[in-house]
Amino acid sequence: MSDIKAALRQQSIETPSWAYGNSGTRFKVFAQEGVPRDPYEKLADAAQVHAFTGVAPRVSLHIPWDKVDDYGDLARHASELGVRIGAINSNVFQDDDYRLGSVTNPDPAVRRKALDHLLECVDIMDLTGSDTLKLWFSDGTNYPGQDDIRARQDRLAEALSAVYDRLGEGQRFLLEYKFFEPAFYVTDVPDWGTAYAHCLRLGPKAQVVVDTGHHAPGTNIEFIVAFLLREGKLGGFDFNSRFYADDDLMVGAADPFQLFRIMYEVVRGGGYGPDSGVAFMLDQCHNIEPKIPGQIRSVMNVQEATAKALLVDGDALAAAQAAGDVLGANAVLMDAYNTDVRPLLAELREEQGLDRDPMAAYARSGYFEKIRTERVGGRQAGWGA
Amino acid sequence: MSDIKAALRQQSIETPSWAYGNSGTRFKVFAQEGVPRDPYEKLADAAQVHAFTGVAPRVSLHIPWDKVDDYGDLARHASELGVRIGAINSNVFQDDDYRLGSVTNPDPAVRRKALDHLLECVDIMDLTGSDTLKLWFSDGTNYPGQDDIRARQDRLAEALSAVYDRLGEGQRFLLEYKFFEPAFYVTDVPDWGTAYAHCLRLGPKAQVVVDTGHHAPGTNIEFIVAFLLREGKLGGFDFNSRFYADDDLMVGAADPFQLFRIMYEVVRGGGYGPDSGVAFMLDQCHNIEPKIPGQIRSVMNVQEATAKALLVDGDALAAAQAAGDVLGANAVLMDAYNTDVRPLLAELREEQGLDRDPMAAYARSGYFEKIRTERVGGRQAGWGA
Amino acid sequence: MSDIKAALRQQSIETPSWAYGNSGTRFKVFAQEGVPRDPYEKLADAAQVHAFTGVAPRVSLHIPWDKVDDYGDLARHASELGVRIGAINSNVFQDDDYRLGSVTNPDPAVRRKALDHLLECVDIMDLTGSDTLKLWFSDGTNYPGQDDIRARQDRLAEALSAVYDRLGEGQRFLLEYKFFEPAFYVTDVPDWGTAYAHCLRLGPKAQVVVDTGHHAPGTNIEFIVAFLLREGKLGGFDFNSRFYADDDLMVGAADPFQLFRIMYEVVRGGGYGPDSGVAFMLDQCHNIEPKIPGQIRSVMNVQEATAKALLVDGDALAAAQAAGDVLGANAVLMDAYNTDVRPLLAELREEQGLDRDPMAAYARSGYFEKIRTERVGGRQAGWGA
Amino acid sequence: MSDIKAALRQQSIETPSWAYGNSGTRFKVFAQEGVPRDPYEKLADAAQVHAFTGVAPRVSLHIPWDKVDDYGDLARHASELGVRIGAINSNVFQDDDYRLGSVTNPDPAVRRKALDHLLECVDIMDLTGSDTLKLWFSDGTNYPGQDDIRARQDRLAEALSAVYDRLGEGQRFLLEYKFFEPAFYVTDVPDWGTAYAHCLRLGPKAQVVVDTGHHAPGTNIEFIVAFLLREGKLGGFDFNSRFYADDDLMVGAADPFQLFRIMYEVVRGGGYGPDSGVAFMLDQCHNIEPKIPGQIRSVMNVQEATAKALLVDGDALAAAQAAGDVLGANAVLMDAYNTDVRPLLAELREEQGLDRDPMAAYARSGYFEKIRTERVGGRQAGWGA
Repeated sequence: MSDIKAALRQQSIETPSWAYGNSGTRFKVFAQEGVPRDPYEKLADAAQVHAFTGVAPRVSLHIPWDKVDDYGDLARHASELGVRIGAINSNVFQDDDYRLGSVTNPDPAVRRKALDHLLECVDIMDLTGSDTLKLWFSDGTNYPGQDDIRARQDRLAEALSAVYDRLGEGQRFLLEYKFFEPAFYVTDVPDWGTAYAHCLRLGPKAQVVVDTGHHAPGTNIEFIVAFLLREGKLGGFDFNSRFYADDDLMVGAADPFQLFRIMYEVVRGGGYGPDSGVAFMLDQCHNIEPKIPGQIRSVMNVQEATAKALLVDGDALAAAQAAGDVLGANAVLMDAYNTDVRPLLAELREEQGLDRDPMAAYARSGYFEKIRTERVGGRQAGWGA
Repeated sequence: MSDIKAALRQQSIETPSWAYGNSGTRFKVFAQEGVPRDPYEKLADAAQVHAFTGVAPRVSLHIPWDKVDDYGDLARHASELGVRIGAINSNVFQDDDYRLGSVTNPDPAVRRKALDHLLECVDIMDLTGSDTLKLWFSDGTNYPGQDDIRARQDRLAEALSAVYDRLGEGQRFLLEYKFFEPAFYVTDVPDWGTAYAHCLRLGPKAQVVVDTGHHAPGTNIEFIVAFLLREGKLGGFDFNSRFYADDDLMVGAADPFQLFRIMYEVVRGGGYGPDSGVAFMLDQCHNIEPKIPGQIRSVMNVQEATAKALLVDGDALAAAQAAGDVLGANAVLMDAYNTDVRPLLAELREEQGLDRDPMAAYARSGYFEKIRTERVGGRQAGWGA
Repeated sequence: MSDIKAALRQQSIETPSWAYGNSGTRFKVFAQEGVPRDPYEKLADAAQVHAFTGVAPRVSLHIPWDKVDDYGDLARHASELGVRIGAINSNVFQDDDYRLGSVTNPDPAVRRKALDHLLECVDIMDLTGSDTLKLWFSDGTNYPGQDDIRARQDRLAEALSAVYDRLGEGQRFLLEYKFFEPAFYVTDVPDWGTAYAHCLRLGPKAQVVVDTGHHAPGTNIEFIVAFLLREGKLGGFDFNSRFYADDDLMVGAADPFQLFRIMYEVVRGGGYGPDSGVAFMLDQCHNIEPKIPGQIRSVMNVQEATAKALLVDGDALAAAQAAGDVLGANAVLMDAYNTDVRPLLAELREEQGLDRDPMAAYARSGYFEKIRTERVGGRQAGWGA
Repeated sequence: MSDIKAALRQQSIETPSWAYGNSGTRFKVFAQEGVPRDPYEKLADAAQVHAFTGVAPRVSLHIPWDKVDDYGDLARHASELGVRIGAINSNVFQDDDYRLGSVTNPDPAVRRKALDHLLECVDIMDLTGSDTLKLWFSDGTNYPGQDDIRARQDRLAEALSAVYDRLGEGQRFLLEYKFFEPAFYVTDVPDWGTAYAHCLRLGPKAQVVVDTGHHAPGTNIEFIVAFLLREGKLGGFDFNSRFYADDDLMVGAADPFQLFRIMYEVVRGGGYGPDSGVAFMLDQCHNIEPKIPGQIRSVMNVQEATAKALLVDGDALAAAQAAGDVLGANAVLMDAYNTDVRPLLAELREEQGLDRDPMAAYARSGYFEKIRTERVGGRQAGWGA
């Protein structure tokens, strides 16, 4: 059990700056009180999540949403708050120019503009000390025939290659795939196979990131995790959960058993721990629930799934598997899943000088009342801002 | 063949005022040139679609997007343009108050506000002469436990009953169901069965509307159409198409064979023709393609599917079905589907004094150049406006 | 907690006779040792499940698989084993005559044959004292046009009406729906709405049965449960689980959180307890795992989900829901789900004079070794036998 | 148009020996009259399909279903009938030994047995002159924890490597992936990415085969086709169609527009024509329709989709795509799709000395009456035989 606690102490779950801003669906973005109005305020909120959970020291930025004049100053600000800058997320989907795509656009001028943005993101990595660039492309087409599927792959490969060549020592990019949305016929990087094939050609600094909401119905995500780890190509996760499409609910909310199975394959495949290079990042939308508590709950959900995964009795499992004992092997896994790990995690927090119950402690802290009062005027952060 | 032409001449496909404004996904609404800035300009665009196709004389309104001071004036404007007001679509999803639902909200004050809006829509029916109210509720929950599923049904039933009682002579409402989005756990009217059960209790003025994009993957929509027609509960269609979720692409673009099968069941079940009460409405988003041509193409797609459905040799089909001749019966249906009906429709248009090719005729008309130049300044119509 | 134990003591989970025979996919039925060779041996195996769990006193029969000369004798045999006959399941899908359907077949002679079988099943209810007839129809079509969708509904309605009229005092039928398989285009009862509409017309002796594996991807099953309970039309469950289609895995194996949510709605909607009329039945295929342990594990999975559902703090939940506290309400539900109820159930078993661990106790009992040795020769039971 | 005819004349669509035998679902295999009782009779039926369509000269074999003592004799028999042996399909899923997998089984003895079978299939390639081995593995697991996902990949890689090394000059294998069934939790080769990664490591003699029914709901298959062609890794197709899962209906029956889009990408990506190495194979189940007509119709469906794909005006399409003309580009594609190509194909057949209507000609030929009378006694071929 002390091994498990030691492993849990090492965990680092990255929260995204945009989770603290307003978000929504195409139908409506509901505004909430106290929402940050600039990257500095977003970092302050992220620091709260770390303060109460102890395992969320990194914050992903989104460019241009988090553009500032002085990135060194932003990094210092983070440091003073007890957190640091994590992955840089590029955004090539919110200009009118990108109507028909960014790096795969039929128009070379648009492609150039998109590539310039990606290269600028690497500049920001240099300035902030971030080691990871996350690339998600909304590129694709809505109608059969609209554009040439293969030519778009050629254009994609060209852009990825240019970004890859720009990466410095100790830098990498993670290529994200997505089943659909906002493209509704072809998505240019629709599945892990496409992301994998591109990354394989480029080399070790290119890896695949698995967003848990970006798959076709019924897809076995833990298989993909196991496979990518076997190939040395799993760069990290964008965690969230879904019942239908890319719902972006809190991770673990829709199918906690799936999250556990994923974490089990991470641990089993050597993807856990600081040396693995596998980044645990959240990427969610708190459309109707409060933002900071939503992040705290999500961090706790990942922790609980991790604790259960670490509890699996590997020897007993291997023995049952080798014996072809279907029910026995399944029971070993379920035994860990059915364990209530909340007391263990409470104990761990106490040992770290934290409150046993992060949700209650945050609620009592008065932080929300403070930001609700202070953050009046200005423009609230949100998608598209 | 002259029977088929006569039947096609009767067709009336209703276009939605909001299709002429900007639309998009949660990631981005791309702005287009020449987009209308008020309901009068939307009607002008809709009138173009009718002018070139001859089968789109009705225009659906969306309240509050299409609110005007004088609805009588708006109706007269429509009439002068050669079209008329169709269904009134209510909107109880774009206020911050509706974060947790409208008519199913746990807060009675919000429910009251939502109901008042629905009743106001009936007032607008009275003022415009519209005979149909279309009810779509984005209501639902995102997280298990968030609200009580059954209590929400009780609240829904209460609101529907109040609206039903307010309907006048010759008025009806159509209740729309949707699998998911924007609610991501429970949707309060998620399937045809739910809509049907509520409508059945209320009486003949309540019917179900089938949006072709609102189903779980793999759902056999034509079965639902056949079943609702058998029960006398099919009120109409919101046509569009999809490869994934509620993609809202142009009807017939993703699966023209499915559209044909749906139209076949409409015809077979007595749902075709002015006396059937089945309304053919479009409900789409032209996110990346031009709006008016997108509507013209969609109208033509419905026409083509209808023509093919009318071509099915009913006697041969019935004979093969009765004989248990699987391949023979399928071949009768496919024979109609595989026929190229475009020459027939071109001929029909010519007989009606229209251009054989509505897309080309519209392109030549100069209308787009005109609106692009004239519609400068003001606020473009779009989702949320 | 004593209330919860009392409620759990009342639970009755019915196991199906066919789960003890061999089963498989279209690719292969793997034979296992010790499999029963007649209905008497099936009942003996079912009695083991009850002996070790204490909550499985009823056994569903499948006709003609479980045809015997003397049903009174079979019922007595069950009674001596400590169990009793539960639902009678009709089978109108395994004769060559049913290639194009049974009660919806275009050929009236086949329809008559199928109806006769259904009526014979009611005779067997009379003879065995069973109060429930379960109707599942594999009827449907594979190709568009193959048969007339609406005519098939008419034929279905006619057959259901004849069966309904034949039901005696205290007898009912449950109509099962299924998304697809073995029909691959239209299934004649594809969803709960279809089953509901037919049952509603017939009256109170006709109810809907929910097979948890018979839905389109992503369908919210607990919504259906809540809705049918509100309408008084939920007759029971065919429990199993699935990752993809109708996989027929052990209930709770694929998504234990979903099973919990279903059981929560059952409890919340008044569907729990002997007076509710809601039957908890298993309907699974143990293709690769041993049969009796597979049933014991399944029964335990339902028990655990039930215990968690009973643990939900209803007052706290209602308060959070009324306050619109999304995270708080969700947390109340998750609190129950995350509780490890296995100690509670072990204690309950001990109080009932049972072993705390039914799986281990069965394994130690020597029953399997006994049947493996004794059941040699004869024809093993299985699908199609 | 003469170019198109020339291209169509080159087409070669391979039919599978098992399509002529009985098949079914797990619920029932319906027996049909006149079904072959040995591989010789299967070839005779396949020769009929070629005789009436002129484009089906190759027949896939399935081992052990098509085991014979003298493969040279079988090949000669084929030749006399005017056809020849195509791909050899391995079968490692119908022995009780394979309950927990074949080449990925935890038991090394079972793995050895499975590998021996695969190597035997290469022997049969040598004996029959077949150049293609098709590998489909039903391997996978039903329950989380049942076996180690990664270890199974290691075992798979080992077996594939051994088979690869055994391949002679001019021989290749095609690795088939499948989303699910008969495994219901993990399938060891579940998607194109997995098949691609394994083939890439092995070298040019290993390619991916796309079974059009083996994907998650909503998967864009033509994207996969385009991507694999770009990578030089598309070995061929197993054609069939589906509305739900792996329904194995006649190709083109469920979504003829999808088949057209696939064929368009084949043509556009250089996958059409004898030098492309892309094999067009049928893999279907005629569960309820007659076998030989089912194959003829399927061959015709592929021909029609191909003809439409060849009709696409490439220059007009490229111009519209380059201009970002969404509707225009889509219209170019739809123009080809909406063309009725049946007269063109009838003409082509006439030029080749065939009947314009293969279905009618076969029906008139008396072949079915002949086999119905002659093929009495013996054991009908079918799944598992």
